[in-house]
Amino acid sequence: MKKHIALVPGDGIGPDIVREGVKVLSAVAEKFSHEFTTSSYAAGGVALDSVGIPLPEATLDGCKQSDGVLLGAVGGPKWDTLPSHLRPEKALLGLRGGMGLFCNLRPAILYKQLSDACPLKKEIIGDGLDIMVVRELTGGIYFGERGRTEDRAYDTMAYTVAEIERIVRKGFEIAQKRSRRLCSVDKANILNSSQLWREVVQRVQSDYPDVEVSHMYVDNAAMQLVRNPRQFDVVVTSNMFGDILSDEASQITGSIGMLPSASLAEDGFGMYEPIHGSAPDIAGKDLANPIATILSVAMMLRYSFSLSEEADAIERAVNSVLDDGYRTADIYTDGMKKVGTSEMGSLIARAL
Amino acid sequence: MKKHIALVPGDGIGPDIVREGVKVLSAVAEKFSHEFTTSSYAAGGVALDSVGIPLPEATLDGCKQSDGVLLGAVGGPKWDTLPSHLRPEKALLGLRGGMGLFCNLRPAILYKQLSDACPLKKEIIGDGLDIMVVRELTGGIYFGERGRTEDRAYDTMAYTVAEIERIVRKGFEIAQKRSRRLCSVDKANILNSSQLWREVVQRVQSDYPDVEVSHMYVDNAAMQLVRNPRQFDVVVTSNMFGDILSDEASQITGSIGMLPSASLAEDGFGMYEPIHGSAPDIAGKDLANPIATILSVAMMLRYSFSLSEEADAIERAVNSVLDDGYRTADIYTDGMKKVGTSEMGSLIARAL
Ligand SMILES: CC(C)[C@H](C(=O)O)[C@@H](O)C(=O)O
Ligand SMILES: CC(C)[C@H](C(=O)O)[C@@H](O)C(=O)O
Repeated sequence: MKKHIALVPGDGIGPDIVREGVKVLSAVAEKFSHEFTTSSYAAGGVALDSVGIPLPEATLDGCKQSDGVLLGAVGGPKWDTLPSHLRPEKALLGLRGGMGLFCNLRPAILYKQLSDACPLKKEIIGDGLDIMVVRELTGGIYFGERGRTEDRAYDTMAYTVAEIERIVRKGFEIAQKRSRRLCSVDKANILNSSQLWREVVQRVQSDYPDVEVSHMYVDNAAMQLVRNPRQFDVVVTSNMFGDILSDEASQITGSIGMLPSASLAEDGFGMYEPIHGSAPDIAGKDLANPIATILSVAMMLRYSFSLSEEADAIERAVNSVLDDGYRTADIYTDGMKKVGTSEMGSLIARAL
Repeated sequence: MKKHIALVPGDGIGPDIVREGVKVLSAVAEKFSHEFTTSSYAAGGVALDSVGIPLPEATLDGCKQSDGVLLGAVGGPKWDTLPSHLRPEKALLGLRGGMGLFCNLRPAILYKQLSDACPLKKEIIGDGLDIMVVRELTGGIYFGERGRTEDRAYDTMAYTVAEIERIVRKGFEIAQKRSRRLCSVDKANILNSSQLWREVVQRVQSDYPDVEVSHMYVDNAAMQLVRNPRQFDVVVTSNMFGDILSDEASQITGSIGMLPSASLAEDGFGMYEPIHGSAPDIAGKDLANPIATILSVAMMLRYSFSLSEEADAIERAVNSVLDDGYRTADIYTDGMKKVGTSEMGSLIARAL
C-alpha cells in the first residue's frame, strides 16, 4: 500500500514525538512492505512565529491532499496572550472544521503496566479500564455563532439533526464492534440542543437493535466516571461535553501520556494526535513520552488505511516494550529502565 | 431572632429529609432561644400531580416572602417524559431565577469518618478535601435564548459584565475567608463568554490583592480534580461548568450523601438544599440520609441569618454523631450502628 502522510509537528515536544511516530511508521512500512511518504507542515505557535497566522493555507491544503495527518501538539504560554483569532488553538479548530473531521475518537485505556499511576482505588478499577469517548468535533458551541460587545458576550450551542445523526451513528457502529453498550451524554433537562440530541439517539437506535442504549446527564456522567468508570464502554456526546468528559476519563486511567486520538471525516480520512499537550518545558530534551503519538499512528493505520494487522502489531510492540520495563521519565517508577524519547521510539520500532 | 422559613420538600425522599432538617432547626431554636416558624409549599413532581405545573405561583410567592427556603429534592422518573416546560427541574430554575439566587455555594468536603468511601487513593487525598465551588446560577446557557425547529436546536451561553462581576466578587470574598486562593474556570481558548469572564476576573482582582488567582480551562479542571484535588480551595465558574465540576468534586469526596448547598441572592437571602437527588426508590421508607439537609440548615443559619455559632453547633453535632458510629444505610460500613432517617435526625438534634 502507498500512502502519503501530512505531518504537523506543532509546538513544544510536538517535533520530538512526531519524529518517533515516523520512525515506527517506517518500521511498519519495511516489515509489511508498504510505502509511506511524508511532508511536514507548520501549524500553531510555530506558524505564528514564521508567518504570523496559526494555520497557513498551505498547511490546510497539504493536509487535505494527504491520505492522513499526524499531529504532535500545538500551543504554549508564549502565544497565550495573543488575541483570540491568533491563538494556536485556532489551528486545531481550522484543521477540524476545514477537513470535516466531525468524529473524534478518544480511547481511555488503563495500561496494566502503569496501573499504579491510576488515581482511583484498586477496587474501583478492577482488572482495567477501556472506555471509548466518541466526541462530536465540528459543531456545537465550538462552531456556533458568537459575539461580543463591551458589556456582553455570547456563544451558541447549536446542532442540526444531520450533525447529530452522523456522530450518533458512528457511536452505534463502534459500540457494535465492542461490547454493544452505548451511553449518550447530554443535558436534556435544560438544553434544547440536548433534547434534539436525545430524540435523534432514540430514533436511530432502532437501526441498531443489538446495541443497548442509555442516556446520562453530563453532570451525572462526570460523577459516574469517578464512582464507577467500568460501567462505561462507548460514550457518545457533543463537542463541549466530549472535551470535558474525555479529559476526565483519560486522567482517570492514569495513563495520560499513552493515549492517542483520531479525528475522522465521513470518508474515513483522519487526523491523529496524542491527547496530551505540548509540554514546552521539556521540548527538545529527549524527555517526552512518544507512546501516545506512536499509538496515534496505529489508529491511523486502523481507521484510515484499514491496516488492522499493522495497527495490532504496533500496539503489541508498545505493550512488549512496557512489559520489558522500559519507561520514559513521565511514567518512570522504581525498578524500571529509564529511556529517552528517541530510545523509546527505537525500542518500539525494533519490537515490531 | 425570629425567622420564617419556607419549606419545599419536593419529591421522593424530599419530605423525609426536610422533616429532619426541621427537627434540628427546632432544636437550635430551643437551645439558642430563637423563634423559627415554617410554611410548606409544593414544587416539582408533587406540584405537577396536584396543580399541573412544576412551580405554582403560590410557592414562588411564599418563598419570596420568607426569610429563607429549605428545599428537599425535586424530580423522578415518573415525570421524566413530560414536555420540557412541565419538567420538575423547571421548578428549580424558576426558584433560582425568580428569587435572583445567582450565587450557588457547593462545598465538597471529605468527612474523615467516611474516608473509606472516597474513590481516590489515600496518597492523593492526604488528610482530607475541602473545596468550595462557587457557581453562577442565574445566567449562562441555563437562561440564555434558545430555540428549536424540526431540524435544528440551539441554546445561548451569554454573560454580561455585571453578571460575571457579582459572582466573581463573591468568589474573591469567600476566598478571603478561606485560604486566599481562587481558581477561575472557563474555556477562554474557545468561548467569547469565557474570554469576557476572564477579563472581568483580571480586572476585579486588583480589589483583592491578598487573594492569589489562577485560571484553568474546564477540561483541565475536570482532570485536575481527579489528579490532585488538593490543589483547589475556592473555584469560581459559570452555571454549566459549575454544574459539571461541582458534581465531579462532590463525587470525589465520596461523601455525597452529606453535602449541602446554598443558593444566594444579592441581599443574603437564600435557598438551601442537599446536592443529592430525590431517590424515589427509597422514599418514605425511613432509609434516606438526612445529613446533607441538616447541614443545609446550618448553611442557612450561617449565610442568611448570620448565626454562625448555631451553624457551628449543628456541624459539631453531625460530626459527633458520626464519631459515635451512627450511619444511615447509604454510608453504613461493617462495625457501625445502622439507623434510619428519623433516628439520625433525632441523634443530631440531641447532640446539639
Ligand atoms: C486546545 C483546545 C481548543 C482543544 C478543545 O477544546 O477541543 C483541546 O482541549 C482538545 O480537547 O483537543
Ligand atoms: C436538576 C438540574 C436542572 C440541576 C442543574 O443542572 O442545575 C442540577 O443538576 C443541579 O446541579 O442543581
